[in-house]
Amino acid sequence: MIKNIKIYTTNCGIKYKNRDDLLLVEFPTGATVAGVFTKSSMPASSVKWCKKNIDKHQARALLVNSGNANAFTGKIGDETVQKTANTIAKILNCKTDEIFICSTGVIGEILDADLICNAIGPMIEANKDQTIFSKVDDLQISIQENISQDNLFIKASQAIMTTDTTKKIVSRTCQINDQTIHLVGFAKGSGMIAPNMATMLGYIFTDAKIAGNTLQKILEEAVEKSFNSITVDSDQSTNDTVLLFATNSVGDHQINDSNSKELHNFITTLNELCLELAKKIVIDGEGAKKLIEITVENATSQIQAKEVANAIANSPLVKTAMAGADPNWGRIVMAVGKSCQEANPETLLVKIGDHPLTQNGAKHPQYDENLVHQYLKNSEIKITVNLAIGSASSTVWTCDLNEEYIKINKDYRS
Amino acid sequence: MIKNIKIYTTNCGIKYKNRDDLLLVEFPTGATVAGVFTKSSMPASSVKWCKKNIDKHQARALLVNSGNANAFTGKIGDETVQKTANTIAKILNCKTDEIFICSTGVIGEILDADLICNAIGPMIEANKDQTIFSKVDDLQISIQENISQDNLFIKASQAIMTTDTTKKIVSRTCQINDQTIHLVGFAKGSGMIAPNMATMLGYIFTDAKIAGNTLQKILEEAVEKSFNSITVDSDQSTNDTVLLFATNSVGDHQINDSNSKELHNFITTLNELCLELAKKIVIDGEGAKKLIEITVENATSQIQAKEVANAIANSPLVKTAMAGADPNWGRIVMAVGKSCQEANPETLLVKIGDHPLTQNGAKHPQYDENLVHQYLKNSEIKITVNLAIGSASSTVWTCDLNEEYIKINKDYRS
Repeated sequence: MIKNIKIYTTNCGIKYKNRDDLLLVEFPTGATVAGVFTKSSMPASSVKWCKKNIDKHQARALLVNSGNANAFTGKIGDETVQKTANTIAKILNCKTDEIFICSTGVIGEILDADLICNAIGPMIEANKDQTIFSKVDDLQISIQENISQDNLFIKASQAIMTTDTTKKIVSRTCQINDQTIHLVGFAKGSGMIAPNMATMLGYIFTDAKIAGNTLQKILEEAVEKSFNSITVDSDQSTNDTVLLFATNSVGDHQINDSNSKELHNFITTLNELCLELAKKIVIDGEGAKKLIEITVENATSQIQAKEVANAIANSPLVKTAMAGADPNWGRIVMAVGKSCQEANPETLLVKIGDHPLTQNGAKHPQYDENLVHQYLKNSEIKITVNLAIGSASSTVWTCDLNEEYIKINKDYRS
Repeated sequence: MIKNIKIYTTNCGIKYKNRDDLLLVEFPTGATVAGVFTKSSMPASSVKWCKKNIDKHQARALLVNSGNANAFTGKIGDETVQKTANTIAKILNCKTDEIFICSTGVIGEILDADLICNAIGPMIEANKDQTIFSKVDDLQISIQENISQDNLFIKASQAIMTTDTTKKIVSRTCQINDQTIHLVGFAKGSGMIAPNMATMLGYIFTDAKIAGNTLQKILEEAVEKSFNSITVDSDQSTNDTVLLFATNSVGDHQINDSNSKELHNFITTLNELCLELAKKIVIDGEGAKKLIEITVENATSQIQAKEVANAIANSPLVKTAMAGADPNWGRIVMAVGKSCQEANPETLLVKIGDHPLTQNGAKHPQYDENLVHQYLKNSEIKITVNLAIGSASSTVWTCDLNEEYIKINKDYRS
């Protein structure tokens, strides 16, 4: 499906038994890459490595391990990343700064470089006869029907899982200048809720011919409206990373302007793919039973709209009310009040689903608690807040907060 | 104890049965008042009323009802407050702007003005023979021994409770110019965790002779280090209010300089009293089993220190780990990383109790997980984060997060 990509997975013995914990993706010469990373001041060694190399936008390989985040591991952690890059560069005969390395798992534990380095040669050898995706246009069917036997993208999406309960993979096609372009993306993360299992990783692959700078620009915009618009709790991990790789295999010429009309269809498709992956992360939030979409409209700026939406999305009281199907709209008003000094109770319009809750700074005269209670029993819930003080809007997604979340995160690790 | 204060409580029938839900405190002419209020842009009608009148710093009465927050109730809510003030002013023969009114309870429900107004006359009549605290120097003993029969301050502290499981009242004495000054404070709030039961109220009474402006300054400083340094969740209610009343009954002259040496002892005592009340709120946080003290040291500014401390205190992952006595220190590092761009992993020192967890950007070589696990079984836990990038520090208090919190806040109100 994506021409000229090779995928290798294996179990190298970091933590998990009877499943793959190491993924290597090999790209052809000329592949470009874009990346978005955690803003944490305590980034994992692998994040520091990727940040250092991303501006060259050249990629020959991606390596991901699960079971250990290699975060807060000091100089030893940095050395592990360097050793891993050296090993891959030697085998693939490329430069180390064309190799992107990611880790996910427990924070603060030393990651054994030898486990990884010793596994790379054999994993390539064992998988060298792979069909290079010439006949994998059935990937979407495999995803829908949950068939994973042969598809290496699906194997890849499973190798990077930690506390995830399901694989998260999306496939799309679009047109650039009448040529069919393929996009495949997969991600891991049970929300941003488990930074001891650090945490959100997303990888997108395409065969389109797009320059690195351009790729970077469109990835940043796609991430802002997808991976950066979801929250399970309010926490941000040390390892959060999204990378977009383009093999530059399909197309007459390389596109190097993000505003080019040629890219319009591709950008729309990329945005959809990222949002679908992001929602899969929220739905898999530990203990989550419900997907909650929160839209704040008519704010004075998009930043303000997103701040208010996040205040609602991160309020434990709103999230517990959603868990209990409790139409406790006072909690939404509270979250607006604490996050937005410019908000005006008189003009504030709050809706749950299609049900208006407020009017003229008080409860809406047609408010029917039982109707809203029935609506909140759905597994997908929409909350709309109209601030009526501007024209900007923003949407974020979150999940409910229930006992299961506490149970998973409280229990002493044994 | 506090000379010239009269306290009246009654049940006026707002919501609760078989308990008082209305409190009136009457002050002598010349009493001064200071206040700190929620920063919410959706303040309750009573908060708007108090904010409007606080700058005059004159108080003749405080009225508080529980069971209904009179928040997000539109113009009707404002009218209810005005009617209540009119009624009290007529009976006490004072101006309406000398009357401070607070409400706590459900948001968005109309508060019946008549219930309150009709109760005020009879409640004064029924309690007019009260001993005006000439012999209440046994208040502290009553508090400690949980004796509530006769003490009107204790009755007052109980009348303002909503989801609180215990009364929160503290008594202190100090000296100003060799004269004994009394301070009594009480508060309500199961943390800031229940803004449908909106939420934190605190009242402090003293017989000291202090001017209004001076009172305001020292109250703001006391609140910053106490009520504004606690968090149960990250939510801020529509009704949060702290008021400090001084009857101006004891002392040779009125003190009108907050830097005056005469006030040194009083300020220390006030700070202690506020902190003790604030901690009582955290300990009574719904479902809370543990008091967690988080100190951030050697930050570049106090604002930064408090931001980092709050990021830790508000992290559901840190709070669930504390509930489970799980020494999951990666979550503390995560919270520091997401909240402080200037933090440096290399210099970061994190301690739980006396146990160092980190060194040189990695796990401390002497870290003993079992020792920390044993320590975390205590009901009071200290976390210290030394950023080593400046000299400012801040301490905040929070509680653990466990299934009980979810249960209380999730269940559909019936």
